[in-house]
Amino acid sequence: MKEKINLKEKFSKFSEFWTPKVIAEMNDYQFKLAKFKDDFTWHKHDDTDEVFLVIEGEMVIEFRDSEIALAEGEMFVVPKGVEHKPSARAECKVLLVEPRGVINTGERIGELTAENDVWI
Amino acid sequence: MKEKINLKEKFSKFSEFWTPKVIAEMNDYQFKLAKFKDDFTWHKHDDTDEVFLVIEGEMVIEFRDSEIALAEGEMFVVPKGVEHKPSARAECKVLLVEPRGVINTGERIGELTAENDVWI
Repeated sequence: MKEKINLKEKFSKFSEFWTPKVIAEMNDYQFKLAKFKDDFTWHKHDDTDEVFLVIEGEMVIEFRDSEIALAEGEMFVVPKGVEHKPSARAECKVLLVEPRGVINTGERIGELTAENDVWI
Repeated sequence: MKEKINLKEKFSKFSEFWTPKVIAEMNDYQFKLAKFKDDFTWHKHDDTDEVFLVIEGEMVIEFRDSEIALAEGEMFVVPKGVEHKPSARAECKVLLVEPRGVINTGERIGELTAENDVWI
């Protein structure tokens, strides 16, 4: 039988920002933890929606025509194909849910592109 | 643009137990909130894994050969086809993630079977 997953314990295992770590799979979807700080890059995911659930801290998701602020216990579903730029003034701990294989920077491959499918 | 979803605010909108309420969709998956208390029924979902993430309180998932206790901030992925029975001694608030259309009691249709696809 699988083990249970403790989010706090998993977050304690890494310190770098903007590098999602896989903690669980459900069918072909992955649950990932990430720490956000400062600005990420504008990007989009053409093939999938993407869920952000804030576990600790506060973050902002900018869109081209608006922005949304998320605090602990708040979630947002970024629709597929919509450009967005996450940011956080101070460290923010986030649970991401999306299909296996999604690249963190979407179509914008660059220095913020994290290695995919890294489990902790 | 969609609205953000505040889990605490959504939980305040219902009080009954074992009746999952949809709060968000990501592709063809749904995020549901439920309040658990006392024993649910043994059941399984033959076509899908099912994620339980405890938002507040404590719960147990019994399997035929073991059981797992989950506290706030802990999650578990019940594999497809595996019989399980959730329970909670005191009220427990849970976030469920599973494909659209999943029936809460799986193959065990009965008085605990909740109406599907109810949004709050």
